[in-house]
Amino acid sequence: MIETSSEVRVRYQETDAMGIVYHANYLTWFEIARVDMLDKLGAPYRDLEAQGYLLPVLEASLKYKKPAKFDDRLTVSASIRELPSVRITIHYEVLRGNERLVLGSTMHAFIGKDGYPVKPPDAFMAKISEHFPAIIP
Amino acid sequence: MIETSSEVRVRYQETDAMGIVYHANYLTWFEIARVDMLDKLGAPYRDLEAQGYLLPVLEASLKYKKPAKFDDRLTVSASIRELPSVRITIHYEVLRGNERLVLGSTMHAFIGKDGYPVKPPDAFMAKISEHFPAIIP
Amino acid sequence: MIETSSEVRVRYQETDAMGIVYHANYLTWFEIARVDMLDKLGAPYRDLEAQGYLLPVLEASLKYKKPAKFDDRLTVSASIRELPSVRITIHYEVLRGNERLVLGSTMHAFIGKDGYPVKPPDAFMAKISEHFPAIIP
Amino acid sequence: MIETSSEVRVRYQETDAMGIVYHANYLTWFEIARVDMLDKLGAPYRDLEAQGYLLPVLEASLKYKKPAKFDDRLTVSASIRELPSVRITIHYEVLRGNERLVLGSTMHAFIGKDGYPVKPPDAFMAKISEHFPAIIP
Repeated sequence: MIETSSEVRVRYQETDAMGIVYHANYLTWFEIARVDMLDKLGAPYRDLEAQGYLLPVLEASLKYKKPAKFDDRLTVSASIRELPSVRITIHYEVLRGNERLVLGSTMHAFIGKDGYPVKPPDAFMAKISEHFPAIIP
Repeated sequence: MIETSSEVRVRYQETDAMGIVYHANYLTWFEIARVDMLDKLGAPYRDLEAQGYLLPVLEASLKYKKPAKFDDRLTVSASIRELPSVRITIHYEVLRGNERLVLGSTMHAFIGKDGYPVKPPDAFMAKISEHFPAIIP
Repeated sequence: MIETSSEVRVRYQETDAMGIVYHANYLTWFEIARVDMLDKLGAPYRDLEAQGYLLPVLEASLKYKKPAKFDDRLTVSASIRELPSVRITIHYEVLRGNERLVLGSTMHAFIGKDGYPVKPPDAFMAKISEHFPAIIP
Repeated sequence: MIETSSEVRVRYQETDAMGIVYHANYLTWFEIARVDMLDKLGAPYRDLEAQGYLLPVLEASLKYKKPAKFDDRLTVSASIRELPSVRITIHYEVLRGNERLVLGSTMHAFIGKDGYPVKPPDAFMAKISEHFPAIIP
């Protein structure tokens, strides 16, 4: 299990005419938390791209419990709960203090520059695997 | 069953450094299809808000099959498959010609100006109900 | 002089907590008008990029007279008033019926794939030049 | 003269298919710098709104020197160079280390909840005035 957390402050640009954050922006905040997690794992997304890998989103889901508002200081936690294979699922929580505002997840696959799925880079898997119990045959 | 479809042309602003549409933008296109559907049902969202109703998103899910690119002309279909009660679920498909790019759904509830859930307005339910078979007791 | 006009319908996503359109979105609407203009000139931006040209923004300015709101149907006019040389300036007006909401302009240069400025492609200049009086020496 | 600076890290969502930051996003970063400046002046925008004031953008201008890219860590400086009267002009610089990427400014007016221009709140002007030399009659 890997868990990291990131800070977000709500921009006016992210609000809508209901006076709350427009719902699509949480996906962008999930991106922030994901990029931050990869940094903390020692496998920055910027470097993965430089090595010819992309990590597009294949699926996403969100549950909206309470709205965030302009200027709120939020915490976005990201966690990987199962050792990834070809696909990687990341779970997210957006919190304002102790209040859970939004829950969600994204599923990703590594693809190469030609657009086809590839195995995750070995160095990436090595870093991830440190956080999961060894599987003893 | 209600089904409508709307046209979207991809903006450069909606692309990202992978050269494809950033994944969060599909939620905005779902919004376009939803607003268009309400228009075609004779219950424009603009009017619902003027009457004191809001229709926030409670849940959303998306499956990304193929990426859209800059300047693509897309069709976004929206459908309501079950007569809504307190909650309304809308399903979406984003198509480029015959290719299905993205599938998804959003679930909504009506809330009043005080932020609390309310029953859908009667006029709205009357318009929706025309499209579903009468339930005979 | 070249002048074209394009239609935009305001998305909920484009509004902010003031209940009006967030000011940065007008730059995206200018993009829509610009792309549309290039289409109508017979030099689609998509094709220019395929030929290895990019047309980044070097300068932009905007004057906000009146706010646009959710669901407004707007017209965005784009005009080229002077025969472009290395730099191209495009002027814009955002209108709601007869009301002028926002005025602005963007200045662009063609750059090649290496990121350096280049002369506009000959075919592009030929199409533009048709709309300006010939300069007789 | 008032000058403050704020940090921004480039989101993938902010990039476009040219592989650089889409030009409209700099206006959003100007907003971040402006909100931060008001905080540091002791007049948070959130509080101004709560007191019934809005501070819409009347004019904006931008000069793009060099592009920002995904994951760049940027500094956005904001400065007020002249004591505001009914209108407030703020100047911005977006820097990556010592490189100046973008320069710009926005002009604002205070409006009341009815949408009409009003004088800036006295408490706000008092805080601003501390940073400018007293005008001796």
